[in-house]
Amino acid sequence: RSFGRIMRPDDANIAGNVHGGTILKMIEEAGAIISTRHCNSQAGEPCVAALARVERTDFLSPMCIGEVANVSAEITYTSRHSVEVQVNVMSENILTGAKRVTNKATLWYVPLSLKNVNKVLEVPPIQYARKEQEDEGKKRYEEQKLDRLETKQRNGDVILPVINPEPHTVGYSQSSLIHLVGPSDCTLLGFVHGGVTMKLMDEVAGIVAARHCKTNIVTASVDAINFHEKIKKGCVITVSGRMTFTSNKSMEIEVFVDADPFVDEPRERYRAVSAFFTYVSLSKEGKPLPVPQLLTETEDEKRRFEEGKGRYLQTKAKRQAQMQQSAQ
Amino acid sequence: RSFGRIMRPDDANIAGNVHGGTILKMIEEAGAIISTRHCNSQAGEPCVAALARVERTDFLSPMCIGEVANVSAEITYTSRHSVEVQVNVMSENILTGAKRVTNKATLWYVPLSLKNVNKVLEVPPIQYARKEQEDEGKKRYEEQKLDRLETKQRNGDVILPVINPEPHTVGYSQSSLIHLVGPSDCTLLGFVHGGVTMKLMDEVAGIVAARHCKTNIVTASVDAINFHEKIKKGCVITVSGRMTFTSNKSMEIEVFVDADPFVDEPRERYRAVSAFFTYVSLSKEGKPLPVPQLLTETEDEKRRFEEGKGRYLQTKAKRQAQMQQSAQ
Amino acid sequence: RSFGRIMRPDDANIAGNVHGGTILKMIEEAGAIISTRHCNSQAGEPCVAALARVERTDFLSPMCIGEVANVSAEITYTSRHSVEVQVNVMSENILTGAKRVTNKATLWYVPLSLKNVNKVLEVPPIQYARKEQEDEGKKRYEEQKLDRLETKQRNGDVILPVINPEPHTVGYSQSSLIHLVGPSDCTLLGFVHGGVTMKLMDEVAGIVAARHCKTNIVTASVDAINFHEKIKKGCVITVSGRMTFTSNKSMEIEVFVDADPFVDEPRERYRAVSAFFTYVSLSKEGKPLPVPQLLTETEDEKRRFEEGKGRYLQTKAKRQAQMQQSAQ
Repeated sequence: RSFGRIMRPDDANIAGNVHGGTILKMIEEAGAIISTRHCNSQAGEPCVAALARVERTDFLSPMCIGEVANVSAEITYTSRHSVEVQVNVMSENILTGAKRVTNKATLWYVPLSLKNVNKVLEVPPIQYARKEQEDEGKKRYEEQKLDRLETKQRNGDVILPVINPEPHTVGYSQSSLIHLVGPSDCTLLGFVHGGVTMKLMDEVAGIVAARHCKTNIVTASVDAINFHEKIKKGCVITVSGRMTFTSNKSMEIEVFVDADPFVDEPRERYRAVSAFFTYVSLSKEGKPLPVPQLLTETEDEKRRFEEGKGRYLQTKAKRQAQMQQSAQ
Repeated sequence: RSFGRIMRPDDANIAGNVHGGTILKMIEEAGAIISTRHCNSQAGEPCVAALARVERTDFLSPMCIGEVANVSAEITYTSRHSVEVQVNVMSENILTGAKRVTNKATLWYVPLSLKNVNKVLEVPPIQYARKEQEDEGKKRYEEQKLDRLETKQRNGDVILPVINPEPHTVGYSQSSLIHLVGPSDCTLLGFVHGGVTMKLMDEVAGIVAARHCKTNIVTASVDAINFHEKIKKGCVITVSGRMTFTSNKSMEIEVFVDADPFVDEPRERYRAVSAFFTYVSLSKEGKPLPVPQLLTETEDEKRRFEEGKGRYLQTKAKRQAQMQQSAQ
Repeated sequence: RSFGRIMRPDDANIAGNVHGGTILKMIEEAGAIISTRHCNSQAGEPCVAALARVERTDFLSPMCIGEVANVSAEITYTSRHSVEVQVNVMSENILTGAKRVTNKATLWYVPLSLKNVNKVLEVPPIQYARKEQEDEGKKRYEEQKLDRLETKQRNGDVILPVINPEPHTVGYSQSSLIHLVGPSDCTLLGFVHGGVTMKLMDEVAGIVAARHCKTNIVTASVDAINFHEKIKKGCVITVSGRMTFTSNKSMEIEVFVDADPFVDEPRERYRAVSAFFTYVSLSKEGKPLPVPQLLTETEDEKRRFEEGKGRYLQTKAKRQAQMQQSAQ
């Protein structure tokens, strides 16, 4: 099934390019609806599907104000306690009829009981047209499970403030915002929609990128994001971002989300999510521009730069392998 | 009583014309305030006025970004269990001082008990300046009651997807969107505001119209809409639209709203509202443009086209009769 | 002229109290409409009235979700280049009919040419019912002019980050957010509405207050705010707040707004606005609660605490003088 909505001025930057975060939020909403519906399709305890993970997502082509975003979602695998959803986004210029695929995203949801949010329920199995589909789904399931475990460790880092930073250093562009979680940010369970969190993350990452290169920037991709911790209504979220790596024509920004319950809760501030966003800088004609190189100063910054380079080269190699494969 | 606000970019399409749905939402909010206030004006059970019906509404003149929309509402008739509200909208260019009437709408509200949403309360009667006002109001009340009953039957139709449709066919422009009902969409009773529903309906109808004629389009009128079924917080709404008829310079689009409780409710998906929207295509100078003819293929499409033609000719005849009357 | 709208969940905190920032935004919109209309009432260059100053505003009583906010605005004085607008806000419970005055605000606007934003136009004079009204208005005009000049100096201060702060210190609760200015934030001139800025300022101040006392907090008052510098569409705004003073039952928070043009602009980041917000902490029954004392550490913090105490005592003395006057 496919659904559309017109992109409005507030969905986009001043160059008219729709924010990656707006698209991620639409993707997540479609995924949440289809997986919640599926998980409630058999008699049993009512539940709400909560976002557990989004796989790496590429933004294949910028979307513009006035275009219609068509979002279609399909369940592609179910494990005992999780649902894999494939969401495709197509942008359509309704004046010319031109259509482009802009995103293909894969999301994992977990059904949580409406009565007891800490209880994970069982997922009704889906039927596969062919046995291989189930096997491939199982493989994807195992892979993401491993990755989820790994990132659980990595989450301790903090962005420290820098006084009077020089242009093009990490401290110069690092940014953070706070957001008071309101009712419209939340699911029926009273926890923040994954899509709302991703939209805020993209907002901060975009500001970091723009501060660094001072040109029109757009989201090129988002690495896999794991949602380990829920964020409750009434929390204050702090979203912080810092640049970790630049190639000739791209910037990688690490984003952290911290939740602070702060009212009526004994709990301390905690890390809820973290992720890497990649941005490119575009000329007025939509061509990628060269990006100023990131100046690293501390040992940690140099290490993170090298790690970012590793991710960059790995992605590049993967893409080339795929292109060769499809050329054969 | 009068309410006003400045029209912002998000209220309008890319040509700067305010969406008909934005205006319908403002109209309904004014109507809900004045009728809720009236129904609670005597000691008794507290209640919230719920929208039951909007009479056919014409959009007399397009409104633009930066103009102030002034909305004034007045109660014009009360039956035992319903309130008729007349809402007028005037657009004002605060730079030139120019004012234009853009809408005259008539809405019917029913007071529902705040403690038991299924209980309809009694409406305090209003005073009429002249006896004829009461008689005319009673006549309007009886007429709309009949029409409400009729539409209750019609609601069973469904929009099926079409693969690879040809331009200007029904399948080519048909569209749908989904919306997860959030807290700010709802009244104190926890049910969707009629105005929120109408705004979504206009959004889909506008996409259908633009896909068909690929030019700047604006809402010209909305046929009477009956709200037979409430939609609760937490539901998913699917709004679908298809073109039913084209004249030389107008397009008629039928819109369906289906609600899916899908969590915590034994209830199946159900049809909540349906309505006909009429759009025109405008040139850059604001002049109406010719519209490509709708290509009907199936028997059903041909039948709906003829029915749409009937509504079109009826409205045209009524308008001519009114013009002759006022010319005498 | 009067404007109204229903307060929604998104307008309020989780205790159901409408944010002071929501109310300030409505007040400013009403003021902008009425003063823009007045300044264009005579033939001449079209202009947009830009907010120059808001006088100290008290929040007399909390507003709640579901209530209707009625905003009425009136022009009370005009100088050659500025307009004074008095805006009153009344909250109305449409279920019980109960009404309370919640705010009385005074705003100053300046007409800027639509063709050249740096050109201040002349204001058509208003007629006064009595000569004293004009004299009193002139006195208010001279007073605010002086105060505007003074604050222009004060604006250089910066909030520095603190590592691992102790609870109840200044560093512990200080907070900041960034916001990318979108089209719906702006007037026809392409500059941020004063009301949008004030809403963001109240959001940060509220988070500072809640972090300090960890209870439900509401805006009690805002000191006079001067808008010395415009903020253009496409800027990134950084809004930062720190606590400056606590009395037994109130907290004073200083808020700074910095604008960073950062794309296509040679201009450096600059201070656009600063202001003092006062908050109180409320129990579930709506009674004011004692507030933990602010722990000051540096000389600057101690100085700011004393200055805050001065403002607090001055306001208290003024209020007592008014009460004695009205008791006579």
